Amino acid sequence: MDPIFTHVAAREAVSEPALAAMRAVVGEAHVSVAPEDLDRAGKATIPDAKRPGVIVSPANAQEVAAILRLCADQRLHVWPVSTGRNWGYGSATAVREGAVLLRLSRMDRIIEVNEPLAYAVVEPGVTYRQLRAYLGVHHPNLWSDSTDGPPDGSVIGNALDRGLGVTHYGDHFGTLCGMEVVLPSGEIMRTGGGPEGCKTWHTHKWGVGPYVEGLFSQSNFGVVTKAGVWLLPKPEAFASFTFDLAREEDLPKLVDIIRELALRQIVTSAVHLVNDICALSVLAQYPAHLVAGHSRLPADALAEMRRKYLVASWSFGGGVQGTAAQVRIVKKELRSRLAPLGRLMFVDDATVGLASAALAVARSGPLGRPVEWAVRTFTGKSLEMLEAGPHIHNVLKGIPSDYFVRHAYFKSEKPKPERADPDRDDIGGIWFAPIAPMSGGHVSEVLAICRPLFERFEFDFYAALLVQNARSMIILTSIFYRKDDPRQTDNARALYHALGEATSRAGYQTYRMGVGSMGRLAQNAPEFISFTRRLKQAIDPAGMLAPGKYGA
Amino acid sequence: MDPIFTHVAAREAVSEPALAAMRAVVGEAHVSVAPEDLDRAGKATIPDAKRPGVIVSPANAQEVAAILRLCADQRLHVWPVSTGRNWGYGSATAVREGAVLLRLSRMDRIIEVNEPLAYAVVEPGVTYRQLRAYLGVHHPNLWSDSTDGPPDGSVIGNALDRGLGVTHYGDHFGTLCGMEVVLPSGEIMRTGGGPEGCKTWHTHKWGVGPYVEGLFSQSNFGVVTKAGVWLLPKPEAFASFTFDLAREEDLPKLVDIIRELALRQIVTSAVHLVNDICALSVLAQYPAHLVAGHSRLPADALAEMRRKYLVASWSFGGGVQGTAAQVRIVKKELRSRLAPLGRLMFVDDATVGLASAALAVARSGPLGRPVEWAVRTFTGKSLEMLEAGPHIHNVLKGIPSDYFVRHAYFKSEKPKPERADPDRDDIGGIWFAPIAPMSGGHVSEVLAICRPLFERFEFDFYAALLVQNARSMIILTSIFYRKDDPRQTDNARALYHALGEATSRAGYQTYRMGVGSMGRLAQNAPEFISFTRRLKQAIDPAGMLAPGKYGA
Repeated sequence: MDPIFTHVAAREAVSEPALAAMRAVVGEAHVSVAPEDLDRAGKATIPDAKRPGVIVSPANAQEVAAILRLCADQRLHVWPVSTGRNWGYGSATAVREGAVLLRLSRMDRIIEVNEPLAYAVVEPGVTYRQLRAYLGVHHPNLWSDSTDGPPDGSVIGNALDRGLGVTHYGDHFGTLCGMEVVLPSGEIMRTGGGPEGCKTWHTHKWGVGPYVEGLFSQSNFGVVTKAGVWLLPKPEAFASFTFDLAREEDLPKLVDIIRELALRQIVTSAVHLVNDICALSVLAQYPAHLVAGHSRLPADALAEMRRKYLVASWSFGGGVQGTAAQVRIVKKELRSRLAPLGRLMFVDDATVGLASAALAVARSGPLGRPVEWAVRTFTGKSLEMLEAGPHIHNVLKGIPSDYFVRHAYFKSEKPKPERADPDRDDIGGIWFAPIAPMSGGHVSEVLAICRPLFERFEFDFYAALLVQNARSMIILTSIFYRKDDPRQTDNARALYHALGEATSRAGYQTYRMGVGSMGRLAQNAPEFISFTRRLKQAIDPAGMLAPGKYGA
Repeated sequence: MDPIFTHVAAREAVSEPALAAMRAVVGEAHVSVAPEDLDRAGKATIPDAKRPGVIVSPANAQEVAAILRLCADQRLHVWPVSTGRNWGYGSATAVREGAVLLRLSRMDRIIEVNEPLAYAVVEPGVTYRQLRAYLGVHHPNLWSDSTDGPPDGSVIGNALDRGLGVTHYGDHFGTLCGMEVVLPSGEIMRTGGGPEGCKTWHTHKWGVGPYVEGLFSQSNFGVVTKAGVWLLPKPEAFASFTFDLAREEDLPKLVDIIRELALRQIVTSAVHLVNDICALSVLAQYPAHLVAGHSRLPADALAEMRRKYLVASWSFGGGVQGTAAQVRIVKKELRSRLAPLGRLMFVDDATVGLASAALAVARSGPLGRPVEWAVRTFTGKSLEMLEAGPHIHNVLKGIPSDYFVRHAYFKSEKPKPERADPDRDDIGGIWFAPIAPMSGGHVSEVLAICRPLFERFEFDFYAALLVQNARSMIILTSIFYRKDDPRQTDNARALYHALGEATSRAGYQTYRMGVGSMGRLAQNAPEFISFTRRLKQAIDPAGMLAPGKYGA
């Protein structure tokens, strides 16, 4: 067993006196050991998810501090989550069984929005949906970024996991500035080194003295109970675009072009370049007759779906913002660089309205067939893609959407629900997300490592290439598997392991890890982990906070 | 005495056996206890600079590691510097007397330049001048950023001090990616959490697991011996501009406009908005007859100098880059926002040539007087400003220049030297650099705190407002004092102390600290320093590495 785990006793159940003490801190209603609650909290789309021992929901930093002190005394280990939507990486589940699940969703105050300086100060329970709705009412000149994942994901939680959004504020950790943190000792610390009431707490990211906020991302050094998040001033003009690559073999060239455009700041949004399976998972589901017998779409079925939905081998969307004149110029640049390689289409608020109107006619009116024919012929889009259009356009403005996360139901025999909740619905899915220098050569190498492994373990190869910054691209892959099928589950586990081994061996790191694989960090980077463990030991000598998280 | 200092014995001299051991590691020639060397290394523009006990210059990370281990054994304290050009903050001098000065200037290899991914990997001895010259020869499509400070400053050193440059890559710590660090234990660690040979070490800033690189900036947790630095792709088009504010009372409005332009990414360069004294210090020197008797320019002398050199109350320059069409649009936006408040002038490579030609005629030919008259009348510039033009234009492209640092000689009776070295030349100067949210109100408040203190202690009020990011502005002030005048030196010390107290009390932090004031951090932010000291204790239990640096 990993030495870091030995500080905390493994426990079957939390003792009654400990529960009573917790109830005294947060109130009766906010401590649960009800088996159905624990079962639910222990569900995740990954295999081998761990069930917590108790769920505690504090209302503020002082209660968080009291719970941490109490757990240190009782030698309990605590797993903090914001809203727990870490789907594909472990949801709300811990590395170890029996954790005190510290759920921060009650701490959902938007404490401040500073319009001239374009930032908000929020608690970890604040969601993308909530923040954007709030801004829409009170500060319509500010936009927030969002992932294309769950709208009820936590703004702070995602940023601390270093998640990626879609606009030019897509590097969520990069837009986090100024934190309040409860340390394992129960002390409450402000980052930034400023004096009491420091006025640049949420405007000057590095502060003075060592920059320590990075220690609270992808780690277990403290519980962030408040943070500043930079917001986008609403641009004067905005357009989105979609691009479909004509020839699959041009992918390396396309990646190089995206990098050049990103380095030149022509492309500033966190572009998601998706392959056929990824696009299909958003637009459609497995044909009903294939769900049971196939862990992987047969080649002819895939070809048929691609024809039906008019899905390219690779396609992507992006946002363009600035003054009207700037948007015009960027569109021109994109046209000159991208159009030779495929189909480029620009969308603005007016086009989106038109598309919705065409869709309504095609879906209901007597003119359905000819309209569908016209859409497919002249735009190269299927009706399903037309339907996706407004969602893509809006999410590129940072407006959260339930639309995309429903892709998780691709292999489910249940229809996609209005509000996706793959944990609830027993959906199997694991993200595996290596990151490569953004060059055609490197990205192709990672794809060439991963794709055959997906084939060997008989899974569809889902890939989305995400621009993390102008020099790096996340190769986000997803293993769709059926949790009710033990063989698929075994294969998913084995594939996940094989992907980690093969990419590490080739010199690629992951940008983020699932709870099931965090131990690998210690194998990959022993001196680094030895360093972070020494820091951890200094801040959390009992090893009580999220033991095993990111290897420390 | 601060408890953190008690780990290391205060020593008068380094023992002979210790010196012999150091010589065995780095070679006879690279260890010096020669009094003239120690005296020189102990000189700084700040008062009360501390003399080192020995100077050691290692050649590589292994030698750094050996020296750190040796010093830990011998209970010596080590003060690492890159090239030691930290002028105004302490130069190469330590917080404490008698340090082992670890000078990294021999480690000056440019290890790699990756042109497609636009980064370099350098050692701490690599200077701005060296890197830019190297790129000019080998990679003319890449630009490096630079400060407008010493060209022989270290690229890594400045970034670790979180210094600011001038282009849109001006946030130097923000462009640092992937470090090799020698820890106080002598271990050599790669940051980033990646596997051996990790391909995103220098492209993916956050790595995987906790982001720890921030711990090595403005701190004393390790010696960075190698780092990746992001470079700018040479833009297709570039223009610079200068702006002179017409009415001093419009400063708050101007600051708000700069913020809006920065948030909208119209202004992307790290603009330096300078006041009259700052501009004059670059263009001129004290009138000879005033140097001795006046610690502060009399009002009439200042007014006369402003008239002579045509210096505005506030002025700034900035760079515009992108495609030719993008540059045109940004120029138009700048014109529409700035022109109502003062005089805006754009400069490109052609204009710069013209200006130099006009200057040559005005300075030498028989047409000198009429040309000078025409320049002053039609451009609003003095000949000295015309002379400054090319330096401003070039530095805004990231080309290092000896021109601006000579401002330090403003109050010297010696003429400005070709190559400034204020330490050598016994120049007195202290930077005091609070940072404010970039709003007219906040910046005015800080100025209103600082300016009367400069007056009370009878010093010229030098201020440069630097755009650190789109939300924050550094209010860089400088105390010019005569080191040969004990009263001025006392007053400089007292002013520096008063500035720190008054700005902290008002809720403003500094963006960077001089070695003489780092202890203040512990007063201002006790929980923060208690946290960083616990980390420090874990990594450097003997407290041997740069004790007292940034409060830990």
